[in-house]
Amino acid sequence: MRKYVHLQEVPKSWYNVLADLPFKLDPPLDPETNKPMTPEKLLKTFPQPLLEQEVSDKRFIEIPEEVLNEYYVFRPTPLIRATFLERYLETPAKIYYKYEGVSPTGSHKTNTALAQAYYNKISGTKTLYTETGAGQWGSALSYAGLKFGLKVKVFMVRVSYMQKPARKQLMNLFNGEVVPSPSNLTASGKKYGEDHPGTLGIAISEAMEKVLEQKNSKYALGSVLNHVLLHQTIIGLEIKKQLEKLGLIPNVLIGCHGGGSNFGGTILPFIPEKLSGKNIKFLACEPKSCPTLTKGEYKYDFGDSVGFTPLLKMFTLGKDFVPPKIHAGGLRYHGAAPIVSALLKNKLIEAEAFDQNETFQAAKFFAKVEGIIPAPESAHAIAGAIKEALKAKEEKIEKTIVFTLSGHGLFDLAAYV
Amino acid sequence: MRKYVHLQEVPKSWYNVLADLPFKLDPPLDPETNKPMTPEKLLKTFPQPLLEQEVSDKRFIEIPEEVLNEYYVFRPTPLIRATFLERYLETPAKIYYKYEGVSPTGSHKTNTALAQAYYNKISGTKTLYTETGAGQWGSALSYAGLKFGLKVKVFMVRVSYMQKPARKQLMNLFNGEVVPSPSNLTASGKKYGEDHPGTLGIAISEAMEKVLEQKNSKYALGSVLNHVLLHQTIIGLEIKKQLEKLGLIPNVLIGCHGGGSNFGGTILPFIPEKLSGKNIKFLACEPKSCPTLTKGEYKYDFGDSVGFTPLLKMFTLGKDFVPPKIHAGGLRYHGAAPIVSALLKNKLIEAEAFDQNETFQAAKFFAKVEGIIPAPESAHAIAGAIKEALKAKEEKIEKTIVFTLSGHGLFDLAAYV
Repeated sequence: MRKYVHLQEVPKSWYNVLADLPFKLDPPLDPETNKPMTPEKLLKTFPQPLLEQEVSDKRFIEIPEEVLNEYYVFRPTPLIRATFLERYLETPAKIYYKYEGVSPTGSHKTNTALAQAYYNKISGTKTLYTETGAGQWGSALSYAGLKFGLKVKVFMVRVSYMQKPARKQLMNLFNGEVVPSPSNLTASGKKYGEDHPGTLGIAISEAMEKVLEQKNSKYALGSVLNHVLLHQTIIGLEIKKQLEKLGLIPNVLIGCHGGGSNFGGTILPFIPEKLSGKNIKFLACEPKSCPTLTKGEYKYDFGDSVGFTPLLKMFTLGKDFVPPKIHAGGLRYHGAAPIVSALLKNKLIEAEAFDQNETFQAAKFFAKVEGIIPAPESAHAIAGAIKEALKAKEEKIEKTIVFTLSGHGLFDLAAYV
Repeated sequence: MRKYVHLQEVPKSWYNVLADLPFKLDPPLDPETNKPMTPEKLLKTFPQPLLEQEVSDKRFIEIPEEVLNEYYVFRPTPLIRATFLERYLETPAKIYYKYEGVSPTGSHKTNTALAQAYYNKISGTKTLYTETGAGQWGSALSYAGLKFGLKVKVFMVRVSYMQKPARKQLMNLFNGEVVPSPSNLTASGKKYGEDHPGTLGIAISEAMEKVLEQKNSKYALGSVLNHVLLHQTIIGLEIKKQLEKLGLIPNVLIGCHGGGSNFGGTILPFIPEKLSGKNIKFLACEPKSCPTLTKGEYKYDFGDSVGFTPLLKMFTLGKDFVPPKIHAGGLRYHGAAPIVSALLKNKLIEAEAFDQNETFQAAKFFAKVEGIIPAPESAHAIAGAIKEALKAKEEKIEKTIVFTLSGHGLFDLAAYV
C-alpha cells in the first residue's frame, strides 16, 4: 500500500546554507563599477529584509508566523513512496518523491512567493512585478499577493503565454495581471518586438524596468537568488524529518534544475551531512536544450537579457542565449543560482542533461503508474530518478532515492499529446 | 494547523444500501413491454458481474484485489478540516471535506471507472463506450481502460468539449478516444446535428447505439445506476472510518448532485444510522438551472434522450430537457439515481438548489482561503456547506459538517474568470 508520510510539524525555520559552506560566494557586482553592489542600489529592487537574508550568515532563519500560517494551508506536503514505479522498474531501490504539486498553485514556487509577499508587505511595497516562464511562478506570486494584499503584475514569456491559457486564467483568478513578454509596455520589450518567442531573461528586464520607474513597487524573483533558495529549504527540511521518521538515510537526492530554487531547496539541508563526509549524491537534472550546468561557463553574467541586474557569478550559457521552444518553460533560463553554481564548481553536487523525448517518456510512464501527471519541468527529475533506480538494479544495491516532484502538469497537457 | 487524516486502511468492501432500505426499489422497465427488463437484454449493455451488483441484496460486496491495488494508487483520499474556511465564516461548526480531487484524473469518478473496467475485462469486453459531460467521467474511464487493457471511446457533450480542451488532452494522454456529441457517427447524433450544444442524454444515446451494433463492446455509465453508487460508497466508508478516528459523529453530510454517484457514495454508508433513528441530515446540492431533485417529477423515464435505455423510476425533468450551458457540465442531467430518488421520496434525504452566481462565489472564496480550486460541480457542495455553517453560527450550535469535494477545477478555470 502507498505510504503517505504526513508530519504534523512543519519546520519553523528555513535553513541558510551560507552559514556552512566551506567557501565564500563571490558577491554580485555592479555592472557600472564592476565592484560589489551597494545595498542602496539593491533596495530599489528588493525590500530590506530579503536583502538581509541574501547575505545572512545565520544558520537558521525563523519563518514569520504570518508566513507559517499560510504554509499550513498546504504543508507539510506528502513524501510518497513510489511503490508502483519501483515495481514496474523491478529495482531494489526505494524511491520516494516529495510532492509539491499539492500547493494552491500547483508547484513549489508558493513557498517563496508567500515569504516574499510578506516581507514586501511589511516593507511598504504596494505592487510586485515579476517574470514567469511556464507560469508557475506568476501564479504563485499572484496567490501570495492576494493573501498579503499586494498588486501583482506578471510578464510571461510569450511562447508559454500562448501555449498555456489556463495559466493566465489561474493568475487572473488570484487577481494577478499578466502580459506576454516581450511586450510593448517597456523599452526592453519593444527592443525585441512582439514576434519574439520571449525568454526569462527578457521578461526579467521588462519587470525590472517597471520597478525602477515606479514608486512603492518592487521586484520578486522566483529563483536564482540566495533568499529564494533559503525559502525553498522548507522542502528539504521536511524531507529530512519525513525520512527520519521512516528511519531512512537518502543515498541520492534529485531535483530538476532551471534557476535552481527547487533543486537547491531540496538538497541544501543535506549539505552539512555531505560536508561531514557522508556518501550522498545530489543530482541536478536539466534539459539538453538549455544545458546551463552541464555546458555553461562559470563566470560573472547578467541575470537578465538587457543588463539591468547585478552581475552574478554563476554557470551561464550567456545572457543572449535563446533556448528552443521546449515545453518545460520553467527550465528555459540561461543562468543558474550562484549557490548551486558554486556547489557544482566545488564538486559537491552533480548535474546531468536529459533530452525532451526521454523526459516525456518518463513523465507519461509516471502518470500511468503513479497516477500523478508531472509538470514537464519536474519530469526531468523523474527521468533522473528512473536512471538512478535502474543503475541500482544493475548494481543490485538497495539505495534510497528521493526526488522532488516540483509541480503537477495539469496545465501542460498540450505538451503531452 | 491543518489536520490531514490518513488511514492506512482502505475499506475492503463496498456497501450495498439495497440490503438495508426499508422499501423496495421499483425495477427498471423494458420500454417495449413496460415490464421489468430481462437480464438477457441488459447483458447486451453491461457485463454479468455488474448486473448482479445492480440487484444484489448482499450488504457488503468484496472489492476484487485487482481493483483494490489500483485504489491504493490514490486512496485513502484525505479528509481535510476546513480550518481556514471555518475561521473566515466565524462559525462554531467543524467543517470537514473529503477531497476526491487527488485521484489520477481529478475526481471521484475513478472509483467506479476502475471497478467497471475490471469487471468488463474479466467478462471479455474489448471496447467500452461512454458519454461524458464535464469530462471527468470520460477521463476516469480512459485511465481505467488503460490500466485494465480496454479501448475506451467517449462521446463528450459538445458544449463541454469546446470549453475544455485540456479534458480531451487528458483522455488522449490515457489513450481514450473522444468525439463531441452530437456527432455524425451515429443516427442518434445526426438527429440533433453538430450545431446542438449537446446533453448527457444525447451522448448516452450515441454511446448506447454504438454498443448495441458492435461485438465485444459494452457501455460504462458514470452515475445513476445502483452499481455505480455501490462503487462510490468507498467515499462514505472512508469518511466514516476517518471521522471515527477523530471521535466525531457527523450532523450534516453534503454532496453535489448531478446523476447521484458522488452524493450517493458519500451518504449511503450512513443510511443505517439514519434508519436507526440518529439525527443526521443528508443534503444534495444541485444547480437551479437543472433542478432535478427540487423541481423534477418522480416517475418512470428514459435515462437517455433518444430512448435506448430502460425506463428508470426517478426524479426527472423529462428526457428532452436541455439545460442551459452552465459550466457545471457534470450536473447537466435530466434524471437522478433511482436510489437517491427513492431516498428523497421517502424523506430520508433533502435537496436544495443553488444558483450559479452563489456557487461561483463560494468556489472562489474556497480557493482563496483553502488553497484548492474546486470543480464547478463540487462548488455546489461548498455552497451548501457554507449555508449550513452559517446556520450553525446563527443557532450557535457546534455541528460537524462534512462534504465531499468531488474534484478539482483546474480544467475549469475558464469558468472562473
